[in-house]
Amino acid sequence: MNNPFRPEEIKIAVIGGGTGSFTLLSSLKDYTTQIAALVNMADDGGSTGQLRDELGVLPPGDVRQCLVALSHSPDIRDLFNYRFDSGALKGHAFGNLFLTALEKMKGDFAEGVNLASRILNVTGSVEPITLENVTLAMKDGDGKITKGEFQISDKQFADTRPKMWLEPRNAQANPRAIGAIENADMIVIAPGNLYGSLAPALLVDGIGQALKQSSALKVYVANLMTKPGQTDSFTVTDYANEIERMAGTEFLDIVLFNTERPSEDLIKKYAKEGERPVEYDEELLMDQTYTAIGAKLISGEIWQPTSKADPIASSRTLIRHDSETVARALIDLYQTYQMQQNEDF
Amino acid sequence: MNNPFRPEEIKIAVIGGGTGSFTLLSSLKDYTTQIAALVNMADDGGSTGQLRDELGVLPPGDVRQCLVALSHSPDIRDLFNYRFDSGALKGHAFGNLFLTALEKMKGDFAEGVNLASRILNVTGSVEPITLENVTLAMKDGDGKITKGEFQISDKQFADTRPKMWLEPRNAQANPRAIGAIENADMIVIAPGNLYGSLAPALLVDGIGQALKQSSALKVYVANLMTKPGQTDSFTVTDYANEIERMAGTEFLDIVLFNTERPSEDLIKKYAKEGERPVEYDEELLMDQTYTAIGAKLISGEIWQPTSKADPIASSRTLIRHDSETVARALIDLYQTYQMQQNEDF
Repeated sequence: MNNPFRPEEIKIAVIGGGTGSFTLLSSLKDYTTQIAALVNMADDGGSTGQLRDELGVLPPGDVRQCLVALSHSPDIRDLFNYRFDSGALKGHAFGNLFLTALEKMKGDFAEGVNLASRILNVTGSVEPITLENVTLAMKDGDGKITKGEFQISDKQFADTRPKMWLEPRNAQANPRAIGAIENADMIVIAPGNLYGSLAPALLVDGIGQALKQSSALKVYVANLMTKPGQTDSFTVTDYANEIERMAGTEFLDIVLFNTERPSEDLIKKYAKEGERPVEYDEELLMDQTYTAIGAKLISGEIWQPTSKADPIASSRTLIRHDSETVARALIDLYQTYQMQQNEDF
Repeated sequence: MNNPFRPEEIKIAVIGGGTGSFTLLSSLKDYTTQIAALVNMADDGGSTGQLRDELGVLPPGDVRQCLVALSHSPDIRDLFNYRFDSGALKGHAFGNLFLTALEKMKGDFAEGVNLASRILNVTGSVEPITLENVTLAMKDGDGKITKGEFQISDKQFADTRPKMWLEPRNAQANPRAIGAIENADMIVIAPGNLYGSLAPALLVDGIGQALKQSSALKVYVANLMTKPGQTDSFTVTDYANEIERMAGTEFLDIVLFNTERPSEDLIKKYAKEGERPVEYDEELLMDQTYTAIGAKLISGEIWQPTSKADPIASSRTLIRHDSETVARALIDLYQTYQMQQNEDF
């Protein structure tokens, strides 16, 4: 058992991909060197989709973001997120090309990611959640099947809790991802696109079972904003329930949700896009298999794009978690949990 | 003055680009950490030419090869020379994209190269010989002007010693390249394409003067094979004379040339392409402003391509300098020179 006053020894696994994982990893890496980012492999849009199509590689995009989050070098961060703006390379993030070249060179995506971590000297590790070439698929209320994460991200199926799966259906989890779950002291489900980003991580064969069996403290950091046409009426409990449905098991110990209301100006701005703050029902939250903990988690800063190389330039939201606040809250949660365990013992 | 028995303190500047510089740097870096590769910036063919055209960057190709030569990591070498084999990226060497992204990100090629050196943890430094966007130009015996290194490399102007220049004509040398020449204990002109690779390095305004004024030991490692249609009848003295003509000054102290005859099989093979071993005239060599030194410098190994990522896979010749033999010969030359200087003193 870890000493609760030595957070640098906490082994943390963060499951997700994209901006939510980026936010959590960016600050968690300052607390522990024992951090593993488990990344969904269903992305098929933009630069990533083009590389998958043209070169037959696994999707580099979310892996890139997680490597960047775990790097301590601002130059590496800028370089990896740099997007070419003209010619045949237009739109490609450099980090995607880096991972693609390493995969092609090594003949193996996991080895490529591993080598990238060494070259970039990142804290912790990034593990693709599966090493198979998977496609996300869903069947909506009308029985219509849609395939591909990019296609699905644009679909309207408001609040219908669609059936979702990966193809091939028996795609196995990356053994190193399973190992990270088994060894973790704390597992965090990052906030993120519920059906496009979290689902394809949790649907992978073996992940739900590993989560269930793990003795780690399992926390979901709840989303801040709804996704129009998909989760419009969702409250915090709906998100948590869907996450457990995707994993095929009730595994969450804690749901950490935001209690701070964004400014009315920002709320109005988001309302135009059909997005609204995720609400919470305190009574409902008290009646769950997990413990719900509310805190003020929103970034006080309004993010402004400063350069094309900005790590979160592709972001779609200005209402976002404060990286440092959430990391501190997670470490505090773990330390409290550890102290309780010690008292119980 | 350096201790001749501490070769690791010798400051060496290698002028050239491409395969010849690669060969020298690969082994010289094992003798000294004080090594600067000064690289011609006129390359405009292939992946490099496409990046120059489409993205307006300076030519990364030869810089890439020099960075690779100075890296101690086989993974970095493989990665940098990896060429994409399909899709929009087809034909691009990864290292070229790396340097291009860094230049675009930093807004400055020299800063990009510098950052690349740090990320790759290379020994020594790579300095573009000029930071201006130069084009190589020539006027042949018929008065016809040809522009562009790639165009010129295909031209036939056998032994006519054409007029050559860079455009813009007043393109200035990179101050850091001049600094490396001024500070060097030994300056080596690498073997290489005389008009396509060495000329555009030596023609840059300020380089000839810096070479002339430098107190370093200045050595040209003579080419092994003639270039059909350009240097067919050239002997070692012709090469050395042309090099001094391009630099606009007699600056060479030593010409190190090969005395080992390649196998008849290889000579026949090359003859089919119109290439033949560069001959030397001993009496003529004794009558020069420089000291000519002959040695067996040819690689005993016949190089076989093993992978697309091979650092010299783009090579056009199997008769090549032995990297280790030439480096040892250069270090020996310098130490002998130093001892003579000490005796004279």
